[in-house]
Amino acid sequence: VSTTSHDVARLAGVSQPSVSRALRDQPGVSAGTRKRIREAARALGYVPSQVGRSLSTRSTGRVAIVAQELSNPFYPALVAPLHDALGEAGYRTILMTDAGEKPVELEPLIDGSLDGVLLTTSRSGSSLPAELSRRGVPYVMVNREVQGVRADSCVFANYAGGLSVAQLLADLGHARIGAIFGPRAASTASDREAGFRDGLAARELVLPPRYVEREEFDYEAGHAAFARLVLRTPSPTAVFCSNDVLALGAYNAARALGVDVPSDVSIIGFDDIAMAAWEVFELTTVRADLSHLAQSAAGLLLRRMSSPDEQPLRTEIPVELALRRTHAPPRAAQDGPCSANR
Amino acid sequence: VSTTSHDVARLAGVSQPSVSRALRDQPGVSAGTRKRIREAARALGYVPSQVGRSLSTRSTGRVAIVAQELSNPFYPALVAPLHDALGEAGYRTILMTDAGEKPVELEPLIDGSLDGVLLTTSRSGSSLPAELSRRGVPYVMVNREVQGVRADSCVFANYAGGLSVAQLLADLGHARIGAIFGPRAASTASDREAGFRDGLAARELVLPPRYVEREEFDYEAGHAAFARLVLRTPSPTAVFCSNDVLALGAYNAARALGVDVPSDVSIIGFDDIAMAAWEVFELTTVRADLSHLAQSAAGLLLRRMSSPDEQPLRTEIPVELALRRTHAPPRAAQDGPCSANR
Repeated sequence: VSTTSHDVARLAGVSQPSVSRALRDQPGVSAGTRKRIREAARALGYVPSQVGRSLSTRSTGRVAIVAQELSNPFYPALVAPLHDALGEAGYRTILMTDAGEKPVELEPLIDGSLDGVLLTTSRSGSSLPAELSRRGVPYVMVNREVQGVRADSCVFANYAGGLSVAQLLADLGHARIGAIFGPRAASTASDREAGFRDGLAARELVLPPRYVEREEFDYEAGHAAFARLVLRTPSPTAVFCSNDVLALGAYNAARALGVDVPSDVSIIGFDDIAMAAWEVFELTTVRADLSHLAQSAAGLLLRRMSSPDEQPLRTEIPVELALRRTHAPPRAAQDGPCSANR
Repeated sequence: VSTTSHDVARLAGVSQPSVSRALRDQPGVSAGTRKRIREAARALGYVPSQVGRSLSTRSTGRVAIVAQELSNPFYPALVAPLHDALGEAGYRTILMTDAGEKPVELEPLIDGSLDGVLLTTSRSGSSLPAELSRRGVPYVMVNREVQGVRADSCVFANYAGGLSVAQLLADLGHARIGAIFGPRAASTASDREAGFRDGLAARELVLPPRYVEREEFDYEAGHAAFARLVLRTPSPTAVFCSNDVLALGAYNAARALGVDVPSDVSIIGFDDIAMAAWEVFELTTVRADLSHLAQSAAGLLLRRMSSPDEQPLRTEIPVELALRRTHAPPRAAQDGPCSANR
């Protein structure tokens, strides 16, 4: 009976998949373990067979899309083009999500039933990217990225988008500007905030703390935060919201309070979800092209699955202002002669 | 070496799990197969061991919620209370969905990793319920049911809800009534339609075919269908939509066309999703209590998992009109003296 990878695993005190990975120089095995496995294989005279290789590298044809926050319509809308882009490459996609607040479990992502993973709702502090890296599972961070993780990522130009909103409001002549920012742990929120703040600073506009609210990406939160901002004296004449869901909450709060948009206050969102274009809203926002993001993310994952040892890439998809009907000059500027850069 | 269930399976020409189920009198094995298995077991002198029993009946603590159509916000909103209700009973829930148009695959539902399944988006013609029945996987049909399948189900009182909308429109004095119905294959759509038609007939009101549109449960479809209805001469003075997503499409189409809701036309939805209460809509609709549905569905599934051979139950959750601001008497009745039942 010839030596098998299981014998090597037993001698090295590791799992059989670790033996396969170590001897094929795949990631997911530490340097020390790799060395121990090589020594065990040498001691037993073990040579990995081609059959074993093909078995353990066989494709499952499946890719998981990890998306939580499905109550944010952005994510159901992102899943469809990701599915299409991967479908064209011959992959079947599975949506992995958790019904409650708990994070998606690691185990179904690493049990060998998947060729790759797209992470779409990661937050800083999430252990999932590091766990996938450690186990050599090919993955790409889509839409959100996590600082300090070396992995492929594909995101929108969130900083540039935030910057362009600041420029728009400055050009319109707003001086009392407020914001409803999303959670710091979401890179989408923090990058948009950084761009918006830098854009205001470049135009010598201030963003006073009392005009800043910070909330989860949630309709009710946007509704309540906008109501608080409008009750400040004087109230801001424009409010930037870190995403459209917050902006729609703000818009409805304005309706509830009898505040006219845009003549009393401008509201600007980010994402351009389908609802933003609905006739009752006509929300001015930042357009982020989901099918472009999906194409690019799928390309990164296909590359990663075929070449696991390539350097990680970061792709940024450009965005542009979608100028609809929720922005206008501030009322004072509307009434009197308007100076765009006062 | 003693006889194992695998030997019995081989002799009877069935799978090993079928042997376990047949000898434990669990469902999922036909009478003929059960007989063949018993004969094979007798021939081989096989007696199922307690260890084998406990292994094959062990709980995984997991339940899957099958929901497709996640772009309809009804389903993300249904998943959360289902998760909570099952969580209280100690079960972890997994959302199973497919990213594209294809149905959810059967295999992950029957591979032994789940204790039970909640099917929320079944359509007539779906093979999933029958397949689960055949394999003895405990499941409950939630929100939608499939004719001809003997299984537990938990649905809203869709017929009664449709009936109450017809009564409301009759009481308001509408005579030219239109409808945007959902797909016939969804029991929610067909039951609501039946109730609505019967309710109109009971008040001697007709629903002429030219005032009837039939669409998928989709915003854009509702938008386009409403525009078609409004262009009929004369146009209907009230439109019932089979769900809120269709009604929101209709509402935005009215805005686009300069048609005032409710003074030109009343729009009534069904479900009372969160968006229906948004200030820009204030949609009159039929309130369906998701947490009540979820509690009841979870109860049915727990009962089914512990007592697989009980008779199937059907639970119907009552609904009620949510009277907001998109219903009014027709314009003629508004202008002149109004007779509620003319």
